[in-house]
Amino acid sequence: MAAEKKTVDDNPVELGKALNADDLAKEFREHSVAEFFKKNTQMLGLTGKIKALTTIIHEYVSNSLDACEEAKIFPEIEVRISEIGDEYYEIQIKDNGPGLAKETVGKALGQLLAGTKFHRLIQQRGQQGIGAAGCTMLSLMTTGKPIQVVSGTSKSAFSCEMTIDPKANQPKILKMEPLDKPFKGLAIKAKFKGIKYQRSENGPYEYLRRTAIANPHASITIIEPDGTKTAFKKTAKRIPDKPEATHPHPKGVTVDELLEMAKHTSSRKTASFLKAELDRMGDKALDEIAKKVSFDLNKDPAKIAWDEAEEIIKCFKAMTFIAPRTDILRPIGEDQIKTSLESILKPEFLSVVERKPTVYHGYAFQVEIGVAYGGEAGRQGAKNEDGVEQRRIEIMRFANRVPMLFDTGGCALTKAVQSIDWRRYGMKDFENMPITIFVHFLSVHIPYTGAGKQSVSDEEEIMEELRLAIMDTGRKIYRYMSLKRREEEKQKKRKLFMKYATEVAIGLHELTGEKKDSIEKKLHDIVLHRLKIDEAKDEAEDVPEEMTDEELKKEAEKEKKEKGKKKKKSRLDDEGGDE
Amino acid sequence: MAAEKKTVDDNPVELGKALNADDLAKEFREHSVAEFFKKNTQMLGLTGKIKALTTIIHEYVSNSLDACEEAKIFPEIEVRISEIGDEYYEIQIKDNGPGLAKETVGKALGQLLAGTKFHRLIQQRGQQGIGAAGCTMLSLMTTGKPIQVVSGTSKSAFSCEMTIDPKANQPKILKMEPLDKPFKGLAIKAKFKGIKYQRSENGPYEYLRRTAIANPHASITIIEPDGTKTAFKKTAKRIPDKPEATHPHPKGVTVDELLEMAKHTSSRKTASFLKAELDRMGDKALDEIAKKVSFDLNKDPAKIAWDEAEEIIKCFKAMTFIAPRTDILRPIGEDQIKTSLESILKPEFLSVVERKPTVYHGYAFQVEIGVAYGGEAGRQGAKNEDGVEQRRIEIMRFANRVPMLFDTGGCALTKAVQSIDWRRYGMKDFENMPITIFVHFLSVHIPYTGAGKQSVSDEEEIMEELRLAIMDTGRKIYRYMSLKRREEEKQKKRKLFMKYATEVAIGLHELTGEKKDSIEKKLHDIVLHRLKIDEAKDEAEDVPEEMTDEELKKEAEKEKKEKGKKKKKSRLDDEGGDE
Repeated sequence: MAAEKKTVDDNPVELGKALNADDLAKEFREHSVAEFFKKNTQMLGLTGKIKALTTIIHEYVSNSLDACEEAKIFPEIEVRISEIGDEYYEIQIKDNGPGLAKETVGKALGQLLAGTKFHRLIQQRGQQGIGAAGCTMLSLMTTGKPIQVVSGTSKSAFSCEMTIDPKANQPKILKMEPLDKPFKGLAIKAKFKGIKYQRSENGPYEYLRRTAIANPHASITIIEPDGTKTAFKKTAKRIPDKPEATHPHPKGVTVDELLEMAKHTSSRKTASFLKAELDRMGDKALDEIAKKVSFDLNKDPAKIAWDEAEEIIKCFKAMTFIAPRTDILRPIGEDQIKTSLESILKPEFLSVVERKPTVYHGYAFQVEIGVAYGGEAGRQGAKNEDGVEQRRIEIMRFANRVPMLFDTGGCALTKAVQSIDWRRYGMKDFENMPITIFVHFLSVHIPYTGAGKQSVSDEEEIMEELRLAIMDTGRKIYRYMSLKRREEEKQKKRKLFMKYATEVAIGLHELTGEKKDSIEKKLHDIVLHRLKIDEAKDEAEDVPEEMTDEELKKEAEKEKKEKGKKKKKSRLDDEGGDE
Repeated sequence: MAAEKKTVDDNPVELGKALNADDLAKEFREHSVAEFFKKNTQMLGLTGKIKALTTIIHEYVSNSLDACEEAKIFPEIEVRISEIGDEYYEIQIKDNGPGLAKETVGKALGQLLAGTKFHRLIQQRGQQGIGAAGCTMLSLMTTGKPIQVVSGTSKSAFSCEMTIDPKANQPKILKMEPLDKPFKGLAIKAKFKGIKYQRSENGPYEYLRRTAIANPHASITIIEPDGTKTAFKKTAKRIPDKPEATHPHPKGVTVDELLEMAKHTSSRKTASFLKAELDRMGDKALDEIAKKVSFDLNKDPAKIAWDEAEEIIKCFKAMTFIAPRTDILRPIGEDQIKTSLESILKPEFLSVVERKPTVYHGYAFQVEIGVAYGGEAGRQGAKNEDGVEQRRIEIMRFANRVPMLFDTGGCALTKAVQSIDWRRYGMKDFENMPITIFVHFLSVHIPYTGAGKQSVSDEEEIMEELRLAIMDTGRKIYRYMSLKRREEEKQKKRKLFMKYATEVAIGLHELTGEKKDSIEKKLHDIVLHRLKIDEAKDEAEDVPEEMTDEELKKEAEKEKKEKGKKKKKSRLDDEGGDE
């Protein structure tokens, strides 16, 4: 069989020859975003056998939850994972959401960077319009097969098969057919190779369990490859209010962003454009800007030049505005987090802190922390010599109600927990305690460190809020444990004294002939009085008090300084730090 | 000024209302890859004031070096950084490379994901066709200004201005004019805001210094904002051989990749296609495949179905092939690394280890390590109490001759250094030693952990090679330091004995009348003889010997096992591990 050995990539240029500009021109190719991500699946979290499977489940389930939230529906989601070969699985997801219309199903599931969420400032799970289409691509890449879709809206229902043309980044829809039975919602069936199911801490089961904790208004069912069916039932009685989209804040907007918005506005004057499309922009501020800039604010916003936009931004910087709207955020809420954690972890003690919404880089965000101690809190660890299971610290991280299971170390949520000096809270061996820390970060714009959306960037304002919330819960646990220990000691001491009192009473009775009972009662009264004085003294001493926000901040500042000093010691890692 | 408050994003839907599928359809938008990266500049390394500037310099300089290498030219690159306002800089880069043709200049500098490198398996600096176009985009985003380009090829020269249309991901070329004076090469002038120059370990100066170390055939000049001009002159006498592109290895290729290649091949039969476009594919292997598959290998490759491609891949998995070609790699070389490090660090001791090329996931790669001790090796640290500067460990990381200055902690190159138990090599306080470790990873396909290209993924095979190389240099340094210490002790001991011998000789002379000189000589002989026996014994004992590869591997295995035991202790970070 004679096959001629060809040069690489149909390169018309002889190998080893020096290339000039014309030669290089022949080599130029353009690539679609789908081809890019196909080559860089790690950026989508679609590498690693277990991670890829969890990411697939995550993408579909997040979309279902977002869609149900938009449509004000209690989500009912069923996830079925079937093993159909070696590292070869079929995933089925079904929801009861608003469904996808025929016109959008291709874009939603078969085109990267198409979606409703990319351009919006709103607290939502999805952001970039990559997820579900990325799964369609992975299915094609690993099995060559299309995905199957059934969608029912309030008007009609259809089924189709779909794949993606990576070269064009366009959906290819096959076998589009009306559905002959009624159906409302979205159901997807897709096959993947090179993935693996495991009921581990990074697997789909744990992902859905945590999703249920953070979305108590949802009912989520998982059917594992071995047929085990687990239903996480809803514990909330109402659907959370729909998050609202917000406008960029004048202090956070850049020249480029302002011009981009100006291009797409339907306002015909710059003044009305600014007022309509920026947060906290009032008539007084507009008057002030009108006086300072070199052009008329009646100008058509589409015609604003770069220099003019720059003038406006300069004004913004010099002016004072109310902080961005934060009422558009929808936290899970203290009560609901408590109900969730109690029903799942059955802890001995539980403390939940919800911080007030605040702002980083002009974006609204909020932090919710829950700390559960004892019961089933903490991760399962090894058994000790007596066969008793040792539990240890577990951090559950969430961003806009979505669990993050990977990239733990680089995430602000982990770093904040680790930055606390837990010995101050009476926990010398913090990592080996039966504690679950629930950390929820919610924002209109989550600063993920990668497209895989598994870790939050450690912006200063975010770290500060996280630390304050964690320290607050830390003190509450400390207080609980201190009181518990004190109570135990108190009981021990009382028992001892009482036993002693009874013996003394018998002795005195024999000596004096006085009635044993009355001697004993008198002695008991004396001992109790004495014990109470001691206990009151103890209490004043070492149980930590609740702290105000002001006090917490001071405490945080103090700790930071001490940490700073220690950190001066050389470390390998600090080579790569940026300001 | 009355401006009507509009709903967000021209959303025609009332806020707060439940949305159905049709409402959501109206919200759908498509986005270009340029818009995506504009919103995710952190994925390109273009966030952080200092990091963004270093990344800009890196993108331009890498392109220049790659182009010169292609054209077999000794690169002469000049980088000028001028401060023209508050966090506002103009960057000028000029090279003597082959230049860009008029037809390609737009794609090379004004379109994301267009380039010559995306689809090639070759040891090159650039890979994805994003870098320089990303800079054009950042310039537009932060200043609204186009970049200026002057390009001269062997045929003609021109100048132009250029910007990018993010919506379309297309270049916009303005003022294209022929150049009236002769020029060969490429010169770019671009302005950026929101960046900052600093002569720090993460800044452009250090970036270029390290680039010079790893590219000794290049002359690189930097002119800093304060006017300081530094020239890193070339120390190599020849241009490195051009790296060759290679074909995918049968063991590394996936079904999807094979089909993709089959679509673009110019071969008309599957057999000739396989032979021409896969590495190590011979006639014997083809015969074997022909016997096993269900279709005729004379089939047009463009018509291969998924199942047929799967059959071929199944054959590959069951067959034995020679390992991938590794002769296409171009290491810097032991001698050249020595010359480079000596000229820049002037170390007391220097050891360079070049491992043989090997393979991960079907891709050829190689590791070069240099360890310099003393002199100007190590990073500058604080001064001690006596005012003497304390130097400490410095790791210089390179991928395909490109320095990586960020994301230190997550990089395989750092992890490999940190994974070594340095106490075994006599370094109890390893982090505070005057040592520079130069680590060069070269491959036809570098598994970066992100598009920012600042860290290499810790694949098992890569870690193993890195560790073996580092352990090898570690032993060499240990040997050097042990010998040095022994020599010092020897000298001290000799001095002491000789002094003693002289005194004894005087005593004996007085006692016996024998000549002092002859007694002294005899005593010296005895002492020297005795010392030599002792020294020989010492030598046999604690100076580490050179090791063979086999021994090194055993040592590595042993260390790994011990480390594994220690690691079993609970740690917070391991929550996020994948298999």
